[in-house]
Amino acid sequence: MPEQITLYTAKICPYAHRVELALEEAKAKYTRYEIDLTNKPEWYAPQVNPASKVPAVAYGGPPVPADQPSLESVKIAESLVLLEFVADLFPEAQLLPSDPVLRAKARFFIDAVGTKLTPSWNSFFRKGGSPDDFFAGLEVIQALLPASGFAVGQYSIADAAIAPFLARAQVNLENDTGAWKEGEGKTVLSVIQSPRFARINQYIKDLEARPNFKATFDKEYIADVFKRRFGNIRAQNSQ
Amino acid sequence: MPEQITLYTAKICPYAHRVELALEEAKAKYTRYEIDLTNKPEWYAPQVNPASKVPAVAYGGPPVPADQPSLESVKIAESLVLLEFVADLFPEAQLLPSDPVLRAKARFFIDAVGTKLTPSWNSFFRKGGSPDDFFAGLEVIQALLPASGFAVGQYSIADAAIAPFLARAQVNLENDTGAWKEGEGKTVLSVIQSPRFARINQYIKDLEARPNFKATFDKEYIADVFKRRFGNIRAQNSQ
Ligand SMILES: N[C@@H](CCC(=O)N[C@@H](CS)C(=O)NCC(=O)O)C(=O)O
Ligand SMILES: N[C@@H](CCC(=O)N[C@@H](CS)C(=O)NCC(=O)O)C(=O)O
Repeated sequence: MPEQITLYTAKICPYAHRVELALEEAKAKYTRYEIDLTNKPEWYAPQVNPASKVPAVAYGGPPVPADQPSLESVKIAESLVLLEFVADLFPEAQLLPSDPVLRAKARFFIDAVGTKLTPSWNSFFRKGGSPDDFFAGLEVIQALLPASGFAVGQYSIADAAIAPFLARAQVNLENDTGAWKEGEGKTVLSVIQSPRFARINQYIKDLEARPNFKATFDKEYIADVFKRRFGNIRAQNSQ
Repeated sequence: MPEQITLYTAKICPYAHRVELALEEAKAKYTRYEIDLTNKPEWYAPQVNPASKVPAVAYGGPPVPADQPSLESVKIAESLVLLEFVADLFPEAQLLPSDPVLRAKARFFIDAVGTKLTPSWNSFFRKGGSPDDFFAGLEVIQALLPASGFAVGQYSIADAAIAPFLARAQVNLENDTGAWKEGEGKTVLSVIQSPRFARINQYIKDLEARPNFKATFDKEYIADVFKRRFGNIRAQNSQ
């Protein structure tokens, strides 16, 4: 039986969202503690995560309030480390397949998300570069997907690793909140919804229809925060 | 029983070396195929690794010569994916501990190698920046080490992930092959050998004394290649 799990997280953060997806998928019992990233509690860095980022987990130790973490719990950070940790803690949830080859495929997929998809999205989203790199990143991912189902067929941590980014990209494109030229968000969205990206489009639908996603994604809240935080980014960058 | 394993590798490459260390540690039976990175065989990218990098593994399929890879074997790339793959294929080798918390620590350590140590080394080594970032990277690693033993106590893929980089850094510092000011290699080496880095220094000794390391590290060859390839980097950068 796993010990107590306290997850320090923030609704807006795609990295933290990964871990919430895995915990929900595993039907884990855990305490969710929202960290206000614009005003982090002073105990957070010294007592939970020296890197002062979410997500982080306090695992085990005595039952304590989340805002008074115990010295006796183990503190673990880094979303991808935590995805594997949740998979290890809840083997019956099969968050990774048992076949070593499929496990390797899941991890290769996760690597591609971090080296191909998120950097290309960030440069388009934050710097207003050409969307072509982002399309190329999406194509890498699309080429890795099997004909149907999730990244390695059954749902796995590979899907939990990518879903938060695809969902947030969607929101930003829909609302045209990004550093790109005004209106370009919707143009890019229409490309993603065209036959060229049929497979990934279906995949996004499958990810978003999953109960673990519905339980952890507050689209309106996220749209609002993005509008407040990035609504102005186009203007800022052109200054 | 694992199926046949063919490892495409290159003695000079630290990423490929990681996988050799893991396979040796697991006492795996495998075919080692050296790829000449300066003159890659034309079949390599289309038939083994589209990214055209080492390491890559061809796993399973019929017995074939390594330079005629079968369509039926699974091709797997990325050193960290392969470390986990080897750990999964040879559970009895305990390349990861069975305790989920220790597994998470091993993976967090690997993350720190990739985000803190190797970038700081590369900027010093290739761009001749201040060694302070590299020292800071080493301190991050040192702080993660337990009082004695390997990264998480017993030998694990965390150690296989870092050893190739520490060993190659050592060779470059000793031979003063790097973009730094002439003579600075030896100065930095003496800092690493000073009490400030006593723990990591002991760790390097332990890593290099391990049979898997001795079986896979050809120091003279590596020194030679580095001299040929980087002996001139200082002059090149200052042009
Ligand atoms: N590499 C980390 C990245 C986590 C991260 O960057 N989290 C952001 C929020 S999305 C954060 O907490 N940043 C610190 C801050 O906003 O002060 C992971 O994968 O967990
Ligand atoms: N992210 C890859 C990096 C592998 C890599 O960069 N390998 C280099 C040699 S050290 C390579 O094969 N480069 C291609 C070339 O030299 O043509 C991994 O971890 O396996």
